[in-house]
Amino acid sequence: MERVCFLLQVKKDRLDEYKERHKAVWPDMLQALRETGWHNYSLYLRDDGLLVGYLETPDLAKAVAGMSVREVNARWQSQMGAFFEDLGGRRPDEGFLRLEEVFHLD
Amino acid sequence: MERVCFLLQVKKDRLDEYKERHKAVWPDMLQALRETGWHNYSLYLRDDGLLVGYLETPDLAKAVAGMSVREVNARWQSQMGAFFEDLGGRRPDEGFLRLEEVFHLD
Repeated sequence: MERVCFLLQVKKDRLDEYKERHKAVWPDMLQALRETGWHNYSLYLRDDGLLVGYLETPDLAKAVAGMSVREVNARWQSQMGAFFEDLGGRRPDEGFLRLEEVFHLD
Repeated sequence: MERVCFLLQVKKDRLDEYKERHKAVWPDMLQALRETGWHNYSLYLRDDGLLVGYLETPDLAKAVAGMSVREVNARWQSQMGAFFEDLGGRRPDEGFLRLEEVFHLD
């Protein structure tokens, strides 16, 4: 299982809306995540918009590829894209920065 | 179980040493963490020294308090303190910024 940590930057003037949207993620989006291997998946937000994601997955490349062909993900990411800084035209799930794991204790 | 994410800032000129130290955390330090409820605990590092911690624990306050009375933790944190920016005189395990969880999928 890969333990993945990634970063994104949410626009400061859209933090409240971002939080609200994530209290009510569409059920078919949640189901697609489950089916494509996104497990124990959490998002954390700092006051300035720094977003930290953590998830466990058998294979991150497959998990991202699996979502990339889901119609519900295209709809979700097209709405989420407007919340982020600095994506350079990519979707949020393609533009995140994965961090190096330097320690782990089970 | 609380799913905790926190941030610290490692000094840029000590990143390599920080990584090396975390490949060989003392066994008695690891044991103390286990005994005080630090589970599934990972640390991630960005190139500029941003450190992200993730752990699962029944009660973060108790986990921190439990470690605070361990002699091995005092020794470890006194050595680790020199690696971090902006702790304002606190130990790393007292000076971290906990982030708000805004989404979770099991």
